Amino acid sequence: MKQERSQVTRDRLIEAAGEVFARAGFESARLADIAQLAGVTTGALYFNFDGKEALAANLIQRQSDIATTISKEALERPGEALESMVQLSLDWARLIGSDPVAAGVRLILERPDLLPDISTPYAHWFSVAEQFLRRADANGELARHIDPDEVAFIFTAAFVGVDILSGAVQARERLIARVQLMWDVLLYGIADTRKAPGAARILRGTGATI
Amino acid sequence: MKQERSQVTRDRLIEAAGEVFARAGFESARLADIAQLAGVTTGALYFNFDGKEALAANLIQRQSDIATTISKEALERPGEALESMVQLSLDWARLIGSDPVAAGVRLILERPDLLPDISTPYAHWFSVAEQFLRRADANGELARHIDPDEVAFIFTAAFVGVDILSGAVQARERLIARVQLMWDVLLYGIADTRKAPGAARILRGTGATI
Repeated sequence: MKQERSQVTRDRLIEAAGEVFARAGFESARLADIAQLAGVTTGALYFNFDGKEALAANLIQRQSDIATTISKEALERPGEALESMVQLSLDWARLIGSDPVAAGVRLILERPDLLPDISTPYAHWFSVAEQFLRRADANGELARHIDPDEVAFIFTAAFVGVDILSGAVQARERLIARVQLMWDVLLYGIADTRKAPGAARILRGTGATI
Repeated sequence: MKQERSQVTRDRLIEAAGEVFARAGFESARLADIAQLAGVTTGALYFNFDGKEALAANLIQRQSDIATTISKEALERPGEALESMVQLSLDWARLIGSDPVAAGVRLILERPDLLPDISTPYAHWFSVAEQFLRRADANGELARHIDPDEVAFIFTAAFVGVDILSGAVQARERLIARVQLMWDVLLYGIADTRKAPGAARILRGTGATI
């Protein structure tokens, strides 16, 4: 019972940290604000985490767990590869905008030194994109010969950039629309939309043009 | 005379700061290392700058000045718009890899709170991309109707993302090749390469495929 309660407190603290870090940035975030938002005392925060850096490191690990889970599900989905890939990127964009844990993803940029290996989060998305593109190629969904490895790099970079610019320049709520826009530009260059109708439908269905 | 010497010292400190911040990140960078690399005492550093944050803020301002200068020159160049745009992005990538001031560009991600307005650096590149795309559209260089505003956003995002991933995942020296790769994917989607032969030539000439 005690252990369960402790886990609940830790979860609440990590969610609160995600919200406060997302809003204020690592540097300006105050532990007192995180504790208050979690509904616990600052003492309870220190009982569970060694401090701001430990809290941030835990948050990054939790983000990684979420990304792994939703990617695995998307990769196991049968059918059109580009459709699943577009859907996954929109799902992740939605989580960044609505899930307090995922919202704190800017920590990776602010404090790369908190990660055991900074390449890990990018390597994850890179590998996922590469698997989707290989399947798209095998399914004949692509408009031309592309190197899955090279295009996976550009996809990952564009997504990371769109996330940063959406956070820096405008409200995060517009992230989903911006990811659709990214797909609109990229899909035009790589996909045969007649052979990848699902991806085209998702973008049309959400109001983006293709 | 004294004033000139002081400016030389400040310049050397800013360049040294760019190198150390680029290598170690803001958090881990040591002022003693910056002073040593600049060939001055830590006392001289503090005489010129109030501390690490002031040094970083000055460095960011100097990066912004360089970006403004090279963008202005590129925008004034007559002829094919996409060619000038590709060339400018490769020039900037080259500077990030070779100029100590430009190399410290990751500071903007680590300490966005040091900027008076975080949207400024992105707004600059966004505006430059938009101007090039409008000209490309007027010149008939584009393959289809595109919204310059929307595509400018994706270009800026992709460039920022490529820079981050190149820094995080692999040696910065590969940044130029990665920017070429980005263009390879994006240009295919937006340009009529017969009407924008210069851009295509730059990419081919540097070994990228188009």
